[in-house]
Amino acid sequence: MPQAYADLADRFARISNVEGALAVLSWDAAVVMPKGGAEGRGEQTAVLKRFAHDLITAPVVAERLAQADDETLDEWQRANLVEMKRRHVQATAIPSDLVEAIARVTTTCEMIWRDARAKSDFAELATSLTEVVRLTRAQAEALGAAQGLSPYDALLDLYEANLRDSTIEPIFTRLGQELPGISEAVIARQPKAMELSGPFPIERQKLLARDMMAAVDFDLSQGRLDESAHPFSGGIPGDVRITTRYEEADFLQAMMGVLHELGHAQYTAGQPVAWRHQPVGDARGMIVHESQSLFTEMQASRSRPFTAFLAGRARAVFEREDDPALSAENLSRLVNRVQKSLIRVEADETTYPLHIVLRWRLEKAMINGDLSVADLPAAWNDGMRELLGIVPPDDRRGCLQDIHWPVGAFGYFPCYTLGALMAAQLFRAMLKQVPDALEHLGRGSFGPILAWQRENVHQQGCRYTFDQLLARITGETLGPDAFLDHLRLRYLSGA
Amino acid sequence: MPQAYADLADRFARISNVEGALAVLSWDAAVVMPKGGAEGRGEQTAVLKRFAHDLITAPVVAERLAQADDETLDEWQRANLVEMKRRHVQATAIPSDLVEAIARVTTTCEMIWRDARAKSDFAELATSLTEVVRLTRAQAEALGAAQGLSPYDALLDLYEANLRDSTIEPIFTRLGQELPGISEAVIARQPKAMELSGPFPIERQKLLARDMMAAVDFDLSQGRLDESAHPFSGGIPGDVRITTRYEEADFLQAMMGVLHELGHAQYTAGQPVAWRHQPVGDARGMIVHESQSLFTEMQASRSRPFTAFLAGRARAVFEREDDPALSAENLSRLVNRVQKSLIRVEADETTYPLHIVLRWRLEKAMINGDLSVADLPAAWNDGMRELLGIVPPDDRRGCLQDIHWPVGAFGYFPCYTLGALMAAQLFRAMLKQVPDALEHLGRGSFGPILAWQRENVHQQGCRYTFDQLLARITGETLGPDAFLDHLRLRYLSGA
Repeated sequence: MPQAYADLADRFARISNVEGALAVLSWDAAVVMPKGGAEGRGEQTAVLKRFAHDLITAPVVAERLAQADDETLDEWQRANLVEMKRRHVQATAIPSDLVEAIARVTTTCEMIWRDARAKSDFAELATSLTEVVRLTRAQAEALGAAQGLSPYDALLDLYEANLRDSTIEPIFTRLGQELPGISEAVIARQPKAMELSGPFPIERQKLLARDMMAAVDFDLSQGRLDESAHPFSGGIPGDVRITTRYEEADFLQAMMGVLHELGHAQYTAGQPVAWRHQPVGDARGMIVHESQSLFTEMQASRSRPFTAFLAGRARAVFEREDDPALSAENLSRLVNRVQKSLIRVEADETTYPLHIVLRWRLEKAMINGDLSVADLPAAWNDGMRELLGIVPPDDRRGCLQDIHWPVGAFGYFPCYTLGALMAAQLFRAMLKQVPDALEHLGRGSFGPILAWQRENVHQQGCRYTFDQLLARITGETLGPDAFLDHLRLRYLSGA
Repeated sequence: MPQAYADLADRFARISNVEGALAVLSWDAAVVMPKGGAEGRGEQTAVLKRFAHDLITAPVVAERLAQADDETLDEWQRANLVEMKRRHVQATAIPSDLVEAIARVTTTCEMIWRDARAKSDFAELATSLTEVVRLTRAQAEALGAAQGLSPYDALLDLYEANLRDSTIEPIFTRLGQELPGISEAVIARQPKAMELSGPFPIERQKLLARDMMAAVDFDLSQGRLDESAHPFSGGIPGDVRITTRYEEADFLQAMMGVLHELGHAQYTAGQPVAWRHQPVGDARGMIVHESQSLFTEMQASRSRPFTAFLAGRARAVFEREDDPALSAENLSRLVNRVQKSLIRVEADETTYPLHIVLRWRLEKAMINGDLSVADLPAAWNDGMRELLGIVPPDDRRGCLQDIHWPVGAFGYFPCYTLGALMAAQLFRAMLKQVPDALEHLGRGSFGPILAWQRENVHQQGCRYTFDQLLARITGETLGPDAFLDHLRLRYLSGA
């Protein structure tokens, strides 16, 4: 192996292992850590993050990156070097006092936000959030200057390499135009679903979750399912950990959550073994990650064939063979019910993107200096009226609902919806190459579908950017057509 | 704070946090990690250990230690500096290629040992163990040269600062003389205990374990109890984690295990908050740690009053009010039964030290070059005959039983028995200062006993060496009298 490249590979493997340790610490804090561990855990995490930061920003790295540029590398190594450079530039672009200031201010702002949301008191948050916006803009300008990007593009690039606002703009404009009509049409004609009548004992729900894991071919010798207040997917290949939250009254929420996280988990589990611990061996960014969770949850698991399988398993597990709410037809209605919601995380597939379009407009305006934090609540409510036709009665159910901005995550929201579009494009391509995919889903087996994902997406690591990867698989650029077609087919065709 | 000292304090706090992270990773590997995580976990651990090693061996540390020597420090800071120096010397004394060679060889030897023990085939282990002894001797010589100690003393000092073989020699000689007679006398006259007749459902055992934790005042907001194949105590203050192993047929094994680990756990939990993350704020070495687990388990929990409390709780939890095996009298007989065993970890309080005396003789001879690994089985069996009057029929139940030597832990064994002696000395001192201690134990409460431990032992951190600490509390040097008195009182007086 060429020397400079080999030095870098060794260093980035160390960084990856520190990040792997941080993933375990983070899982532990969410799932098992007693309250008394919080302070110590915060310190451990800070020390390890600083260690990883020091490893990536060491002066020798820039030198080795320049030397490796002139070395003879194969295609994967070259892609690895590109990813190393991107991470190095992002880590070194921001002055360390700004990094520390952001860490401090976002920690404080998150705490204030929790309180402000509970009290629905935006005024309480405004000063702190203004400071977060100011520092995030400084961060975006520094990142942009180092990479030749506009500030907002520099933030987008943190979450998905090569994502630009010029890609988002036409897509979100089109979604803003078409989705309100689609969701109105669905609401007008969707048949009424019968509500679930619980209780659904949690021990039984856990058995059903096992069935879901088996359906998605999740290997329990390579991962775990646990419970936490906020479901997530974490860990490393070989040890992928997902969590869910059970409620006795409604098992569908836990199952759909498990299926969503399984999509993320299988992406992590399927990373190329030969490139483990190297940047190119990692999952791509948030668009692709979200495309995999939504491919599994929205495209595959909420399909008619799979919901029929799920309904059958649910009737067996809960010993409710005659419960009409658990018929295949009714379960499909329940998991695909469209209704306008004030809350993003409760939104259905047709209206969710409208919540994202709103946030994208507002965060871009804040970062670009066109919207002050003080004006956010009014702008939020105007946007809700325009896009969804409903207006939050208070800020708790309005601009205070999400954690993202208080913790400084500007540029993250678009990935949710772009991931949904990519999922639709990938699923359509998969259906062409795996013609019996839906029959497999009907039998509760992702087998050949997962194999297709492994080969086309998971095994590619960071070899390509999200748009190159999509083009390779589908021949298309990222766009709304497949997603809109999917919505019309699922919700308006009667299919 | 003086500058050089402050720099060191900052560095050692980082080291402590890396070690805290390693403690979580280690707990996770033993308790929850799926099989597929082993490889990644090994790499994470290696990277973090190297990080901690690099922090402590950095050239600037020696410089700062020398500068801090001339700074004005208070008594705790001075003790902290002493402990920093000791750790620095121990870390820098061994050449890094020797450190790596030991890590490699002991990893291999442990694997071979697992196989050799299963097959009771000492020949399979001999070559690898010979290599471990050779490298450990090199390590001991390097450590000894740097600290002005003999090789074996240098190893002892790794596990308990200031422990010297000249302290052990007279104590172990006396134990070797007195204990065989005591255990013979007990065996001849102890009343026969009625065996437990299970099953004791594991869910009920878990409730009983909760009672034991409550008795020892263990705060579950500051720690956890889980299950693992090999029980242990780990974690950090604020997040102390113990494990146990349940068997349906015998709940006493799990309960005594929990009480033992609770003794360790309370020591960790009680470290001085003001010195958290500093070397002086840590627990002292293995003698003191073992003194705390044995104080809790052997001295307090196997006492008549506490076993009577345990018997009452057990009858209630298992709903066996009339089970004669669960009478206070019978339970006391069961947990204090003396019988000669080939296996150290199954030995009772009177014969356990004889197993240790044997290992101490043999490991010292191996390190000093007076005993070759090839001659170990014969020497082992001769020693068993002399000290315990029984001879293992095979090496699996003989010199292959312990993991310590294959993993390079020479000098560790004596701490078990020295801890038992220290526990007896401390318990006797406690009884003088807390006259109603036994009544509290009878009510299932360690309250004032734990308070005494907190003040006298736990809160002292590493301010004193084990012998200074013992002298401060008891006015005595470490010796066998209190322990032998305890044995005669418990087993031969009828009390």
